[in-house]
Amino acid sequence: MKKNLVVIGYGGMGGWHVDHALKSDVVNLLGIYDIKKERCDLARSKGIFAYDSLEEVLSDPKVDMVTVAIPNDSHKEVVVKALNAGKNVLCEKPVAMNLAELDEMIAAAKKNGKIFSVHQNRRFDVDFLAMKELNDSGDIGELINIESRIHGSRGIPSDWRGEKEHGGGMLLDWGVHLIDQILQIITTGITKVYCEFDHITNKEVDDGIKLTIMFEDGKKAYVEVGTYNFIDLPRFYLRAKNGTAQIRDWREKCKVVKCKHWHESEVVPVETAAGLTKTMAPRDSITVDTYEMERPASDVHDYYRNFVKAIDGTAAQLVTHTQMRRVMKVMEAAFKSDELGQVVDFDDSDN
Amino acid sequence: MKKNLVVIGYGGMGGWHVDHALKSDVVNLLGIYDIKKERCDLARSKGIFAYDSLEEVLSDPKVDMVTVAIPNDSHKEVVVKALNAGKNVLCEKPVAMNLAELDEMIAAAKKNGKIFSVHQNRRFDVDFLAMKELNDSGDIGELINIESRIHGSRGIPSDWRGEKEHGGGMLLDWGVHLIDQILQIITTGITKVYCEFDHITNKEVDDGIKLTIMFEDGKKAYVEVGTYNFIDLPRFYLRAKNGTAQIRDWREKCKVVKCKHWHESEVVPVETAAGLTKTMAPRDSITVDTYEMERPASDVHDYYRNFVKAIDGTAAQLVTHTQMRRVMKVMEAAFKSDELGQVVDFDDSDN
Repeated sequence: MKKNLVVIGYGGMGGWHVDHALKSDVVNLLGIYDIKKERCDLARSKGIFAYDSLEEVLSDPKVDMVTVAIPNDSHKEVVVKALNAGKNVLCEKPVAMNLAELDEMIAAAKKNGKIFSVHQNRRFDVDFLAMKELNDSGDIGELINIESRIHGSRGIPSDWRGEKEHGGGMLLDWGVHLIDQILQIITTGITKVYCEFDHITNKEVDDGIKLTIMFEDGKKAYVEVGTYNFIDLPRFYLRAKNGTAQIRDWREKCKVVKCKHWHESEVVPVETAAGLTKTMAPRDSITVDTYEMERPASDVHDYYRNFVKAIDGTAAQLVTHTQMRRVMKVMEAAFKSDELGQVVDFDDSDN
Repeated sequence: MKKNLVVIGYGGMGGWHVDHALKSDVVNLLGIYDIKKERCDLARSKGIFAYDSLEEVLSDPKVDMVTVAIPNDSHKEVVVKALNAGKNVLCEKPVAMNLAELDEMIAAAKKNGKIFSVHQNRRFDVDFLAMKELNDSGDIGELINIESRIHGSRGIPSDWRGEKEHGGGMLLDWGVHLIDQILQIITTGITKVYCEFDHITNKEVDDGIKLTIMFEDGKKAYVEVGTYNFIDLPRFYLRAKNGTAQIRDWREKCKVVKCKHWHESEVVPVETAAGLTKTMAPRDSITVDTYEMERPASDVHDYYRNFVKAIDGTAAQLVTHTQMRRVMKVMEAAFKSDELGQVVDFDDSDN
């Protein structure tokens, strides 16, 4: 049976959740609530029911679950209230401003026996899924390092996303997705984190990040978010023991160059601009296979489908509390690293 | 008048210098010397005179200059001997194993009043020259950061370049060029260095580097050398206040996207794989100009031309002792950073 949903916050992502819910086979949109009256009026003008207050939403016994899509600094208060009111809660990312807030939210979920998760919709990104599929298949061997980049050129949005007190900044915005994706690909323990922030269009919050995550087995991940990049670098780049993979753009397929033979009978040095090089001479088709992967199938509706199954107890929730805490801890380590200008140790023992 | 040259070491780069000298309008190749008899025989078989010993070269009064192209750990001994014998010395890179060695070599040059420099031939690379030209022109404004990458997929060569005692490793091999280029583009003081080494095909020496150089005015440079990259990332990537530039491959032109107007009247959010984004929405031609730069003219023969002029006192030497020391100091800081796993401070006060 469909679960009755109210979307709290009717801004950009709130609107996305509403549109999504209207097409969903697992939820039934009861309505929305937004702290701004004009947003409620906008919903009503589209024929969507709007509650007059958060209390009205939470005291409505028909409501099974709420989706929280409001500025980051308000997540904790609203989420905890909703959980205490016996509602299941799906929260937009980043789920919290810090680990202490998140732990309060998790405690409220456990106390009330309700499902609480974060909307990591980018687990359904086809580019990420292709990288994960390639890595899990072992087709080019064990991963050495992976690089995940997202580049725009508009600076940081001029709304609350540019203000520290509201949880602005690109680490909390896009970083949270890219980190979550990486931790789905590399599953070993994290040992160290190094991060440098950009402050090109905004001095208060980071408008770009360059984050390195080091793992106990020597694997490394690099996550880059840029909002001042008028040319974009490839979305994903992965080196493994037997080859390299790249996704240039999220619209494109994953290109794989797999090494069949390490040695060639002879390597002809190539002349480069002002000198010659044997080390950097390109390989030919004798020693490598080049192919494109088929794009994996993906349906972002599976996120709500899983959430509803989790409420019914017929599936484990896709994005677990442990995963939410771990991503938050990486972000806290990244903030600390940038502040200190140093590599920081990461304690992964409680995960 | 042409200067009489002897090339010491007749391996890969020694052979390059010989071929180059045979076409030069400023040097006259007297011959070569190699510690291995078979290399001397090879030279003779090609009609090139080969000396029987280093002493024979250095005691030959006809010799104006020597080019030293031997394994890195032998540079200092041979260079100092040659300078003390009154020869001008052009040394292959890296000029020395460490700063202490280099300072001995510089002292010998000063004591004997001879020209001593390092063969930074990659100052004549057209890709580097395009980046420098763009930056110096100010066409896209002040530089924010620059990334310089060179990728191969053959691992580290199996000769002395794979052995620590002979000065192997990619930092000393390709890193030395890329660092020198960067310091020609960003000319402010260095404050910090962070470096991570690869050890994929070789445990003894680095077979790849990821090096960040931080400057006092906030500019940053990233230098990456990879020998296990079956797909290569762009050769150069530069972000400036008014745009971005990229050179995909040293054979290609520099692509520039210049921002004409920061704001657009309206930004239409784009749907990405599993969500929508306004921040990362691409720009259209209303706000940016996209163009390709003409490839700068370059003639690597200008290196020897400058060297000969420096001997004659009619030009300053292109690659100065200060520049050589600074590049060496960055490499020493990079070794230290990788060893400590930390960002290290850089003292640029003596440069």
